[in-house]
Amino acid sequence: MKIGAKSYRTIWRSEDGHSVDIIDQTLLPHAFKIHKLKTLEDVATAIRTMQVRGAPLIGVTAAYGIALALHTDPSNAFLEKAIQTLALQRPTAVNLRWALDHMRSVVLKVPEIKRSSFAFEEAERLAQNDVASCKAIGEHGIKIIRQIAEDKGRDTPVHILTHCNAGWLACVEWGTATSPIYHAQDAGIPVHVYVDETRPRNQGAALTAYELGSYGVPYTLICDNAGGHLMQTNKIDLVIVGADRVTAHGDVANKIGTYLKALAAWDNNRIPFYVAMPHSTIDWGLKDGKNIPIEERSETEVLEVSGRTKEGQLVSISIAPRECRAENPAFDITPARFVTGFITERGVCSASREGLLELYPEKKTLI
Amino acid sequence: MKIGAKSYRTIWRSEDGHSVDIIDQTLLPHAFKIHKLKTLEDVATAIRTMQVRGAPLIGVTAAYGIALALHTDPSNAFLEKAIQTLALQRPTAVNLRWALDHMRSVVLKVPEIKRSSFAFEEAERLAQNDVASCKAIGEHGIKIIRQIAEDKGRDTPVHILTHCNAGWLACVEWGTATSPIYHAQDAGIPVHVYVDETRPRNQGAALTAYELGSYGVPYTLICDNAGGHLMQTNKIDLVIVGADRVTAHGDVANKIGTYLKALAAWDNNRIPFYVAMPHSTIDWGLKDGKNIPIEERSETEVLEVSGRTKEGQLVSISIAPRECRAENPAFDITPARFVTGFITERGVCSASREGLLELYPEKKTLI
Repeated sequence: MKIGAKSYRTIWRSEDGHSVDIIDQTLLPHAFKIHKLKTLEDVATAIRTMQVRGAPLIGVTAAYGIALALHTDPSNAFLEKAIQTLALQRPTAVNLRWALDHMRSVVLKVPEIKRSSFAFEEAERLAQNDVASCKAIGEHGIKIIRQIAEDKGRDTPVHILTHCNAGWLACVEWGTATSPIYHAQDAGIPVHVYVDETRPRNQGAALTAYELGSYGVPYTLICDNAGGHLMQTNKIDLVIVGADRVTAHGDVANKIGTYLKALAAWDNNRIPFYVAMPHSTIDWGLKDGKNIPIEERSETEVLEVSGRTKEGQLVSISIAPRECRAENPAFDITPARFVTGFITERGVCSASREGLLELYPEKKTLI
Repeated sequence: MKIGAKSYRTIWRSEDGHSVDIIDQTLLPHAFKIHKLKTLEDVATAIRTMQVRGAPLIGVTAAYGIALALHTDPSNAFLEKAIQTLALQRPTAVNLRWALDHMRSVVLKVPEIKRSSFAFEEAERLAQNDVASCKAIGEHGIKIIRQIAEDKGRDTPVHILTHCNAGWLACVEWGTATSPIYHAQDAGIPVHVYVDETRPRNQGAALTAYELGSYGVPYTLICDNAGGHLMQTNKIDLVIVGADRVTAHGDVANKIGTYLKALAAWDNNRIPFYVAMPHSTIDWGLKDGKNIPIEERSETEVLEVSGRTKEGQLVSISIAPRECRAENPAFDITPARFVTGFITERGVCSASREGLLELYPEKKTLI
């Protein structure tokens, strides 16, 4: 995507060939800085501290992390250590585990001396695949937006609510939830996005607002509390969110608070509530969302808020009494019954085993 | 309530007899400062900028505002001007309108020369009544908590979720939603409160956390997004919130986001969801919550967050891109069907016309 005049992906192999460049997402929207990852530890830190985040991007970053690890030590033992280290950083997103399993399976077939360069190529291929997947999600999802626009009459925009950032910053390009929106914008369908700020880390206010603004999509920031009221007052036509893990029966783990918006969409005459994700987000081995591990993050994320002072300085401030303690579950589970459908790189389907099997019939033996 | 060794109410007549002291709630929990109101304009500003907030306290403050206005000019014309000025500051809370109507009706019977001192006495009486109401709400509400504690077994605490601040800082003493909690704590029933931070103004993180901590009630701060997940994982036994307006048929206007928690309580095996309020919060002239005007506040409240730097300085920081715009509806409507019951100074009733009439049979002609 374009930042100013220049096109970027969220991650790429550095010119030196043996390191990886990322956009440091902890500094957005206040500063745009490229950060270089040279070692396995750099990658683990980048994933844990959320310099990179978003299920698809976490997967691709982990793949590059394997390449960096194998550049240090191409042995089977170190490969396993690297996989274990990276898998631990974020337990909920299944794309991370998916990418690591994939890298293991392909790297083990290659002689040690060739492993790092092979892994770099494979990571690059995964990145390319993610771009293609996200583009396809947009091409399928635009049909939903176009239909609503036609039903409304095209002089008023389609108002879309999204939660957290399932945009290009969460992927390599295009995004998942945002891809249909960008495609609609490109096609001249009038859209307007309500962006949940998404406490505690404010990925909506910081990242989704930033990228929608960069793309020229009209948007309005709201507090996470406001979405229900907007639905009650007919201000939302459609909800599209991403996912960190989707079970084989259609339950959805996504950023904490997603479930509350799904409930409100359901209660307001079933406002369409779609989840956009690539196939790597689907956990074919799991039926019930209750069995998805929910990451608990630091209470500091709740007790403090980061932002820009009037003087332009980036600071964190405390919003609670000094002795205050907090809990910080990072994801929640939206049961399939509240999800209108999935938008994947293969098309749109219902949020159910049957729906997923329509798009992925080859998985029938798994679920 | 006690702050350190000293007992405070949220508002009181100053020693000089012709001004009013309040706790400036915009500075809590970072600083505790008394602020003096001398004129009608001071009172209007204090209500608008939320130096005082919470439906019951807004009502009492407005009553004192009438006394201050009449000290300047006791004429009927100025009384009407004062009522109009104050009524405009916060459109959703009905207690404000209720208190102003009450003050008009009593003040008009008094000769001009006596009006201000009479109005001061009447405001003091309203404050006393609010204390008594809130105490009675606690005495009724504790029964709900006690029953849950007995059902759970008394070695584990009753986990109560609350949203925003319906505590003593929203009233004169005790609070509405918090009063049953304080009474339970005093009675030795183990309780633990999950406090929604309540963006955009963070009254949960700033005020509810502050007062629960001062009272020694164990509590944990959570993001507004987290409540649904906590309910899904059986961590919430009971929800108690306040209200800014309750219709004669039981719909509830309360702080934005309340509706989302009511939906989640409903979806999780009907976790008891109670609304605590005094009779002055009930709008007997209104049936449908859809007709309650919802205050839209400044977008700055969404775009900025206030808090304390590491150096102890109070600052506001921007959390979004510079060009970002926001919407900021301050309240939402929870339909009566999602409310288990009301806790008022007269007892506990169902959230319905019939329930309210059981407690307030004298209102039968009104609804």
